[in-house]
Amino acid sequence: MEARRRLTLIIALLFFLIYFSCSSSSAMHDKKMIKPSNPCKSLVLYFHDILYNGKNAKNATSAIVAAPEGANLTILAGKSHFGDVVVFDDPITVDNNLHSTPIGRAQGVYVYDKKETFTAWLGFTLVLNSTDYQGTINFIGADPIMVNKRDISVVGGTGDFFMARGIATVSTDAFEGEVYFRLCVDIKLYECW
Amino acid sequence: MEARRRLTLIIALLFFLIYFSCSSSSAMHDKKMIKPSNPCKSLVLYFHDILYNGKNAKNATSAIVAAPEGANLTILAGKSHFGDVVVFDDPITVDNNLHSTPIGRAQGVYVYDKKETFTAWLGFTLVLNSTDYQGTINFIGADPIMVNKRDISVVGGTGDFFMARGIATVSTDAFEGEVYFRLCVDIKLYECW
Amino acid sequence: MEARRRLTLIIALLFFLIYFSCSSSSAMHDKKMIKPSNPCKSLVLYFHDILYNGKNAKNATSAIVAAPEGANLTILAGKSHFGDVVVFDDPITVDNNLHSTPIGRAQGVYVYDKKETFTAWLGFTLVLNSTDYQGTINFIGADPIMVNKRDISVVGGTGDFFMARGIATVSTDAFEGEVYFRLCVDIKLYECW
Repeated sequence: MEARRRLTLIIALLFFLIYFSCSSSSAMHDKKMIKPSNPCKSLVLYFHDILYNGKNAKNATSAIVAAPEGANLTILAGKSHFGDVVVFDDPITVDNNLHSTPIGRAQGVYVYDKKETFTAWLGFTLVLNSTDYQGTINFIGADPIMVNKRDISVVGGTGDFFMARGIATVSTDAFEGEVYFRLCVDIKLYECW
Repeated sequence: MEARRRLTLIIALLFFLIYFSCSSSSAMHDKKMIKPSNPCKSLVLYFHDILYNGKNAKNATSAIVAAPEGANLTILAGKSHFGDVVVFDDPITVDNNLHSTPIGRAQGVYVYDKKETFTAWLGFTLVLNSTDYQGTINFIGADPIMVNKRDISVVGGTGDFFMARGIATVSTDAFEGEVYFRLCVDIKLYECW
Repeated sequence: MEARRRLTLIIALLFFLIYFSCSSSSAMHDKKMIKPSNPCKSLVLYFHDILYNGKNAKNATSAIVAAPEGANLTILAGKSHFGDVVVFDDPITVDNNLHSTPIGRAQGVYVYDKKETFTAWLGFTLVLNSTDYQGTINFIGADPIMVNKRDISVVGGTGDFFMARGIATVSTDAFEGEVYFRLCVDIKLYECW
């Protein structure tokens, strides 16, 4: 009789464990995931942007290509540059030195989108081509430039970053007038395949 | 003997349950998910867009910044506005009243992209800053404006919307000439972390 | 006594299986997925792009709408077309014939983004409307045009492609001067709901 009671207890425990296992699986079906404490991949990079101002064609890495009525393409527009569309091909380095060997390029567009303060909308791809990484990471998001740290989304990737998703925290590391600025971009991936 | 038979049955049942549990896990590994019947988060919002027409600089929330050859930046282009690129910073409200206190802004670009009818391509970020929500939601998608309900993709999010994915159903709620239009945006998230 | 030993073995086995089942679930919680060998959905399509050059308004499917200082909207800019922004509404066919019945349209923008060689940044939506497929697929990514095969990200979808994610491999199938080009786009989805 004692053996049976023990057996009943063990079987009850098993059912409990199986139930727990099933319910965690079904939680996955609902895709209500818990924010993981640690990203599956991280990298910190520096973006260097040199805006074309009519005189620096050789060094410039970006150019204003569209602007609202009354503005031009060599000076950022008034009213917080609202409406300026900039195309860029910025070198990416692992330290904050513009003259370090780039490990890749950030290519895409940023758009100044607010009249009252400096904010931008970003859509771009990080194209990495180094001994450590081969592949691309795709980003979109709002960049409220005057905020110290701002988060944008990693929405996909290819190569070493196949199907990646995550968050990139952007901060302005330095700027010189309206021609050069340097961003520190702290990329944390939470989906790695 | 009877106890053994009962035990065999119980163990067979356990194996069946374990198998079921394993196979649902491996279905997740393949990521062939079943469309969930209920989103993990929903919100319905109204976007108010006031297009700059050369005279409403103070109230305008958006401006044409690029247009095809022959078109200008204060009047939407002919041929269904094909080629017009608009940068916007639209207030977002929880009801359909332009004068309600905004709970955030929608910032980004829309592009008219068809000669024969009105369609747009959208890339923007919803920046929410209210007592209920702090964070951003990132969208891209096609907006066939003349269709009653059209779906775009939620491709990522930050803050309260960390890593979100889902669908937003857009409908035109009202418009006044070619200057003001109001969209109802019904956001349903199916991935919540 | 023998029965008990057998029972202990069976229960040990069950625990082992449950552990295995649990650990595979928790692997999912970490979302460190294994790259699947086979996509859950594949389709190969051809994009036909006819760029407006000032004379082909009727046939053109795309137009330059923004360009850097000194460039115009009917001729692609010098320096690898750096800064040109093109809005497009390209017919999509299942074979490489421009005159086949389109099964949908690709709508969005491409941006030439490098001074030294031809590269573009893409943000667009594939709008499918055929007997086989109803829905949209959203893409962003870098397109290093001179590379034979280049990968971009599928970041979302609607309708038949609800919540899709994946990779599209783009290759230039043909081009005629700077007016017509045809892309082969091999779409592989790895997340299907």
